[in-house]
Amino acid sequence: MSADRLMGYISEIKGLSIEAAAKARERIDSLAKPPGSLGKLEDIAERLSGISGEMYYDTKKRCVIIMSSDNGVFEEGVASTPQSVTFAQTMNFVRGLTGVAVIAKHFDTDLIVVDVGVNADINHPLIKNKKIRKSTWNIAKRDAMTYDEALQTILIGIETAIEAVKDGYTLLGVGEMGIANTTTSAAVLCALAGIPAENAAGKGAGLSEEGYVKKIRTIKSAIEHNKPNLADPIDILAKVGGFDIAAMAGVFLGCAHARVPVVIDGFISMVAALAASRISPAAKDFMFASHESYEQGFSHAAKALDIESHLNLNMRLGEGSGCPIMFAVIDAACAMMRNMATFAEAEINDEYLDELRNSDHFTLKNS
Amino acid sequence: MSADRLMGYISEIKGLSIEAAAKARERIDSLAKPPGSLGKLEDIAERLSGISGEMYYDTKKRCVIIMSSDNGVFEEGVASTPQSVTFAQTMNFVRGLTGVAVIAKHFDTDLIVVDVGVNADINHPLIKNKKIRKSTWNIAKRDAMTYDEALQTILIGIETAIEAVKDGYTLLGVGEMGIANTTTSAAVLCALAGIPAENAAGKGAGLSEEGYVKKIRTIKSAIEHNKPNLADPIDILAKVGGFDIAAMAGVFLGCAHARVPVVIDGFISMVAALAASRISPAAKDFMFASHESYEQGFSHAAKALDIESHLNLNMRLGEGSGCPIMFAVIDAACAMMRNMATFAEAEINDEYLDELRNSDHFTLKNS
Repeated sequence: MSADRLMGYISEIKGLSIEAAAKARERIDSLAKPPGSLGKLEDIAERLSGISGEMYYDTKKRCVIIMSSDNGVFEEGVASTPQSVTFAQTMNFVRGLTGVAVIAKHFDTDLIVVDVGVNADINHPLIKNKKIRKSTWNIAKRDAMTYDEALQTILIGIETAIEAVKDGYTLLGVGEMGIANTTTSAAVLCALAGIPAENAAGKGAGLSEEGYVKKIRTIKSAIEHNKPNLADPIDILAKVGGFDIAAMAGVFLGCAHARVPVVIDGFISMVAALAASRISPAAKDFMFASHESYEQGFSHAAKALDIESHLNLNMRLGEGSGCPIMFAVIDAACAMMRNMATFAEAEINDEYLDELRNSDHFTLKNS
Repeated sequence: MSADRLMGYISEIKGLSIEAAAKARERIDSLAKPPGSLGKLEDIAERLSGISGEMYYDTKKRCVIIMSSDNGVFEEGVASTPQSVTFAQTMNFVRGLTGVAVIAKHFDTDLIVVDVGVNADINHPLIKNKKIRKSTWNIAKRDAMTYDEALQTILIGIETAIEAVKDGYTLLGVGEMGIANTTTSAAVLCALAGIPAENAAGKGAGLSEEGYVKKIRTIKSAIEHNKPNLADPIDILAKVGGFDIAAMAGVFLGCAHARVPVVIDGFISMVAALAASRISPAAKDFMFASHESYEQGFSHAAKALDIESHLNLNMRLGEGSGCPIMFAVIDAACAMMRNMATFAEAEINDEYLDELRNSDHFTLKNS
């Protein structure tokens, strides 16, 4: 049943409108500037047109969807932070106290916080309760979840995104909270991209050398023992992933389905985006990478997805904290598209100069 | 006289407040996040405290100062655009039509447009008339300007910045308009950094291969024949620079004098920043690099100044167009500093949970 619903959504994901993108590029090239000189801003504007089918895109209502969940692999000692921090920070998102919360507020960005598996009872009006169960299982000992749970979790992500778009959001970002989720993300990345654990795993939120060795060993043995089907990204998410990552992958798919731009945050978000693109390659057309995360595996994940970042801020907080800053970059692209003059409009002709000479304003200021 | 005034300003430039920066770092490290995980946002916040002497910095009133001027070297055929575009775009800044104008407007950023040497009569209430004269001389044939003119131009930049700060601006950016100024900037860079013209010069706004060869040859012969004193950055600006670059260098010095953060835009802005740092090394403490320009010499200039960019947008428009986007990054750093919770504040204790349980809001939404 879950599989059918998922297949339904995926079959409805279509790529960019080539025609709208071409029209957009025509306008971009007519703007009064050397061709290509606004670089990635031009590419963003073109792609927004391909996504929406329209020349101009409105990014006013924006949000970051945060998937919160605990990860059973925490018990292996692969994280430097107590597990209770997942719960605490999930509450702090809606209290407006975390990194992403304060940055989002500054950039007029709402947070949609979803509990997909926090290891605590949460009953808060501003936190969506979509808990699959309290924490995944420990991937060092068994699969993180069943295949059916993976399907359900992805569907939660898809439907959260679609609902947000129905609520009027036109620009989305994808963040997370889940202690030990750099371990699960690294495992998913290894399986998806075929790279060694040493490349995929970093020191997360400040792991000791000893903890790092354990982390590498845990990832290797999880892949070895749980034997994910490397050709099936959903099986990979189920066997070595987490509810957070799977739900995030769903958000990327949901944004593609609803045809809205979606921003990738850091490492975990990038791995989820990679998983989504393996489930539906067309989903990549809707993704924009925010910052180049300082977490070790990020560049490998970005390379596997073949996507370029826009910000270089050495950030590695997660939470979706880079998304609102990337929204500002996308805003700049929209401002260019909507308000820059074409070569024809930018011409300084005699008429304009006459107008200027005769204006009161001019006389006043120069008298 | 100009020399004395300049020396007066320079002698008053002081470095960062180590004490305020240390206090800021202490607060940053107490915020509820893995240490260092907000990367360059943390560094920005720390430096803003060192600049201002205060824990929190207010970036609400911001502007980009644009220095417009023509360059005599245009007649060598080193630019792909007609010289009249300097005049036209200078007018278009105040008409709100150019790249920087539309991006600045989106980010609540004012433009301060200064004519330091446009090759046309400009009489516009919104353009500051500080014209030294119409265009520099052709550096392929003689010095760009006299040494005294260079001093005057730098002073114009310094005093424009100081005046802006008196008017309440607390965050400034430095842009330019001047056809052929990638040639003069490249020449200044060669002289300041001791690198060959081939590394410093790019294809500007879309130069042909033939034009590029001319550009390289022009730069080489300008340095060879005008013989700038490589130990004197002001002599370099006079002999192979331009009014635009010299005035921009002045803005960087003026911001350091007035103790406000100042954002470097692209290639020309970076070369001006490098020149300013050679005139007063402490000025660098007040500079923040925006985007990694796509113009060829940029990375060499940034390396010579030893400064890292924050945005990677493949932009090469100039005008100061990258500054407003960097202002958004600086805003994010300020939001982090002002509003993020400390570990103590982020703690989820029983009191908070009780409060939550008893709130009307909570009952209402869950009933």
